Amino acid sequence: MMKVDLNSDLGESFGQYKIGNDDDVLKHVTSVNVACGFHAGDPQVMEKTVEKAFENNVAVGAHPGFPDLKGFGRRPMQISPEEAKAYVMYQVSALNGFVKALGGKMQHVKPHGAFYNMAAVDATIAQAIAEGVYAVDPNLILMGLANGELVKAGNKIGLQTASEVFADRTYTNKGTLVSRTEEGSVIYNKEQATEQILHIVLNGKVKTIDGGEVELNADSICVHGDNYEAVELVKHLKKSLIESNVTVQSLSNQ
Amino acid sequence: MMKVDLNSDLGESFGQYKIGNDDDVLKHVTSVNVACGFHAGDPQVMEKTVEKAFENNVAVGAHPGFPDLKGFGRRPMQISPEEAKAYVMYQVSALNGFVKALGGKMQHVKPHGAFYNMAAVDATIAQAIAEGVYAVDPNLILMGLANGELVKAGNKIGLQTASEVFADRTYTNKGTLVSRTEEGSVIYNKEQATEQILHIVLNGKVKTIDGGEVELNADSICVHGDNYEAVELVKHLKKSLIESNVTVQSLSNQ
Amino acid sequence: MMKVDLNSDLGESFGQYKIGNDDDVLKHVTSVNVACGFHAGDPQVMEKTVEKAFENNVAVGAHPGFPDLKGFGRRPMQISPEEAKAYVMYQVSALNGFVKALGGKMQHVKPHGAFYNMAAVDATIAQAIAEGVYAVDPNLILMGLANGELVKAGNKIGLQTASEVFADRTYTNKGTLVSRTEEGSVIYNKEQATEQILHIVLNGKVKTIDGGEVELNADSICVHGDNYEAVELVKHLKKSLIESNVTVQSLSNQ
Amino acid sequence: MMKVDLNSDLGESFGQYKIGNDDDVLKHVTSVNVACGFHAGDPQVMEKTVEKAFENNVAVGAHPGFPDLKGFGRRPMQISPEEAKAYVMYQVSALNGFVKALGGKMQHVKPHGAFYNMAAVDATIAQAIAEGVYAVDPNLILMGLANGELVKAGNKIGLQTASEVFADRTYTNKGTLVSRTEEGSVIYNKEQATEQILHIVLNGKVKTIDGGEVELNADSICVHGDNYEAVELVKHLKKSLIESNVTVQSLSNQ
Repeated sequence: MMKVDLNSDLGESFGQYKIGNDDDVLKHVTSVNVACGFHAGDPQVMEKTVEKAFENNVAVGAHPGFPDLKGFGRRPMQISPEEAKAYVMYQVSALNGFVKALGGKMQHVKPHGAFYNMAAVDATIAQAIAEGVYAVDPNLILMGLANGELVKAGNKIGLQTASEVFADRTYTNKGTLVSRTEEGSVIYNKEQATEQILHIVLNGKVKTIDGGEVELNADSICVHGDNYEAVELVKHLKKSLIESNVTVQSLSNQ
Repeated sequence: MMKVDLNSDLGESFGQYKIGNDDDVLKHVTSVNVACGFHAGDPQVMEKTVEKAFENNVAVGAHPGFPDLKGFGRRPMQISPEEAKAYVMYQVSALNGFVKALGGKMQHVKPHGAFYNMAAVDATIAQAIAEGVYAVDPNLILMGLANGELVKAGNKIGLQTASEVFADRTYTNKGTLVSRTEEGSVIYNKEQATEQILHIVLNGKVKTIDGGEVELNADSICVHGDNYEAVELVKHLKKSLIESNVTVQSLSNQ
Repeated sequence: MMKVDLNSDLGESFGQYKIGNDDDVLKHVTSVNVACGFHAGDPQVMEKTVEKAFENNVAVGAHPGFPDLKGFGRRPMQISPEEAKAYVMYQVSALNGFVKALGGKMQHVKPHGAFYNMAAVDATIAQAIAEGVYAVDPNLILMGLANGELVKAGNKIGLQTASEVFADRTYTNKGTLVSRTEEGSVIYNKEQATEQILHIVLNGKVKTIDGGEVELNADSICVHGDNYEAVELVKHLKKSLIESNVTVQSLSNQ
Repeated sequence: MMKVDLNSDLGESFGQYKIGNDDDVLKHVTSVNVACGFHAGDPQVMEKTVEKAFENNVAVGAHPGFPDLKGFGRRPMQISPEEAKAYVMYQVSALNGFVKALGGKMQHVKPHGAFYNMAAVDATIAQAIAEGVYAVDPNLILMGLANGELVKAGNKIGLQTASEVFADRTYTNKGTLVSRTEEGSVIYNKEQATEQILHIVLNGKVKTIDGGEVELNADSICVHGDNYEAVELVKHLKKSLIESNVTVQSLSNQ
């Protein structure tokens, strides 16, 4: 029987600044990536976010990012592999403290924003991240872009990995995302996005932007909850997956 | 046989900014308090500091501080108990990640600077800190000012505690430190400072500034390594303790 | 003819974090206090906020705060007078760059949050702030709590000052605010709040919580725009002032 | 008569963290680039640095950097032109407050570290920086790498510019620096470095790494003061320039 995880970013508020509809998102996903205080989040927000996730039986992962609150971790920064490893260890461990204190277990680690994108294409940074995660806990699942460098680095070091796919983005014939700067990179239609995901999950392949087809493994689907349309897509996606006899559950249950 | 620990702050460098003579300090002390990235320290500095401490067989503790790099955590900040607890959990857990990855075990937690002073007199903040430490790991030793609120809060919650005394500060008849704003609060003479410590360690009592004597328990002595005189005092102190048949060793060996 | 200014905090967003209804607020007030990047705000937010204020013919002031983004500048911090002065000079000057580049003129400076409260009661910090403002530009108006230390310090150094009053807070017989920790400190009723302001503006006196009356000078009224009720109060207040023949205009027009 | 400026970075300390030998450097240079609180420096450090510079009759410039204290502004960050412009306006204006309060006049602006390097090759960022400087004060001199994009952008917008050359770096046949990653990029010999500078200043040309010669304009020479050898080079350089009848003076005197 087919299985897939639905993941979303959570816990991105900071001090008096509220962002995201965390309570809503928790109703629809099976895993969450919790910000760890570098690009977003703060210790109190982290504590409450983990608590809420467990209350909703949603699996918790760490979402380490660049130390750039002003840019929300979305601005590429050139950091060394040593920095990348240490930043991952610091952030994952900090979140892990809250997870364990609440009697839980951290499921996965997924880098955030520009760190995620860099990890997908830069083998050196990918390896440093994998080393950092492995050093903290070799039982953590490392999540990254399907067919990207991070998943490769994780597999190589001996971590369980999760390949992530996108409902609303088109794919190249190499099985990677069409750049946002190119025409046709984003799928705005809910039905079309859902159709793409069903094809990926059921057949292990995606139709590429140039009309072909390429293999694509999907352990988890990235979804968002920060606006009405995003939530509508998640609900539609989940309903369609279940109707197609796909089990929607967290990675740790797979 | 009498035993006592010598502790010092370590790992306070940040990025390109170097502070302290960490390599020197490690030769003389039995425990170190490692900055966790809030008032000082950064992930790479933390990693290297823990590594060095273990190479020197020195016990490692966390040194959580206020989120105030500009003020080095020395400026009193009014934070809520919830913030205090979450800040402690975050920082202790972050450091713990590096400690465990290196195959070690964290020995203790000692709040830094203004956070330490607040914890010594504010029972509510002291309790929040104790709760945070207990939540992360109930086997951690909580270090605080001898006769202060933090040690009381730690004992109450069921943590092992360590009472810290000072060689170069005078004491009131309540067994607490004479405020730095008062005359005679600091002992500048190396021999006098050493004599005070020997009296405390051997007799469990300290001579007070008003000529009396009060009970004072000493599990650990706070020493510094950031200037020549400080290092000279540490060396003299250690030699005198050993000559008086006091075993100088970390808390975890006691 | 009676005149009074209506001021509100503005430009408190930070990076991806949006806070406040700045566009709405600008329709109702005559002066705004713009965050300067320490407790809230960032360079781009500051630039856009100043631009919008000028488009709405609203006077611009600087709103310097403590360097505590995590606490939104609301947590008391013990800083030295030298730090207070330098922090004020830095923040006021930074904002002034955007004001001048847009061809405008900064009207006033009002410290934010815990810095404001400290300046109202701590004469040393008040003097340091006044010195910082004077050093940047002796023509700036220094705004502080009516009957507080900041206004006194400003007058003493030769700055024009603006006494600020509150519609929704009650007053002691010393003409200062009843502490929020005491019962009856907040006025929740729109009509009652408006009545208090009219009495202050028209008679220069306020009814105190103990049933008496005390002199209270009002150059500016502090209003908020971050929720529906707050905006309703501002609108009601403004309408009532105008109906009572009070001119509602910025300080620089007075 | 030939003239040239000697500039160095200053005021890079932060809180309790001291860096650089500012007092020494001030004896040898004619202009300083003062950190503005983003990559280094803090309000108090800025105030004291400007004061010292004026006491030593050294011209003051702003040294705006990336918002990356952890990386000392040396890590490339991808920021938008709008961010670049706003960051420059904020930092230059903040420093300008201290300069004016001390009765002085800011001479120039030179971006720091990775921001400087980006400005030398990225025409869009260079233009944004030039616009930011021009918006704050069109009389400021914009300093950048000789033959780089920043100097071009400054000239285009109508700012006075200063071309900066390096004593200890070799040049390509395009008049730009040989990358540090290539062999032979750094000149370690004091006499050779001085010879290169004399040739540039006296002849307006530099010998290139491939054996040729290319035009190179030198308004200012970048020097350092953070170690013994650096200071020795500065002293030797200055002595040699004066012996060759070159006047060593700040840009504003030229």
